Amino acid sequence: MRMPEIIADTQLQAALLSLPAWKLEQGELTRTVVFQDFKQAMGFVNRVAELAEAKGHHPDIDIRYNKVRLGLVTHDAGGITEKDLRLAQEIERN
Amino acid sequence: MRMPEIIADTQLQAALLSLPAWKLEQGELTRTVVFQDFKQAMGFVNRVAELAEAKGHHPDIDIRYNKVRLGLVTHDAGGITEKDLRLAQEIERN
Repeated sequence: MRMPEIIADTQLQAALLSLPAWKLEQGELTRTVVFQDFKQAMGFVNRVAELAEAKGHHPDIDIRYNKVRLGLVTHDAGGITEKDLRLAQEIERN
Repeated sequence: MRMPEIIADTQLQAALLSLPAWKLEQGELTRTVVFQDFKQAMGFVNRVAELAEAKGHHPDIDIRYNKVRLGLVTHDAGGITEKDLRLAQEIERN
């Protein structure tokens, strides 16, 4: 399989316009979501996990009671690629 | 409800003898578990989440593909308490 290419910074900034809940943080595409409680947070984590498995691309997931932080980066490519953007878009649709 | 007391360091070291998979890290009781893949890691996370809900005490959970890090501390008490030890023991039994 072709290694996905790292997205240039200007392109990334443009892509972020359609992903307002996401931001760039230490070389990762991140989103933090706050829920009412842990149970709802876990519901979200499981939905994200299902999408991640379907795409074969897995975000870093940090759970802090009702708060979930997702971090997307393509480790093999050493940066943010189309795989990350596509998964972020997929998560937004769900 | 009575605020649980922070466990003294000597007591904590003694308690850790029966929790060999756990260690003290930056004021938290932590355990990192490596699984075969993301799916198995998520299975573990969901078992921990169920125990956490049952106990009303929730670890920090960091998921990195097949690796899960749990962090236990009683934020209200400002340290590690019986609640953390009991949850760690419960996780070990499962």
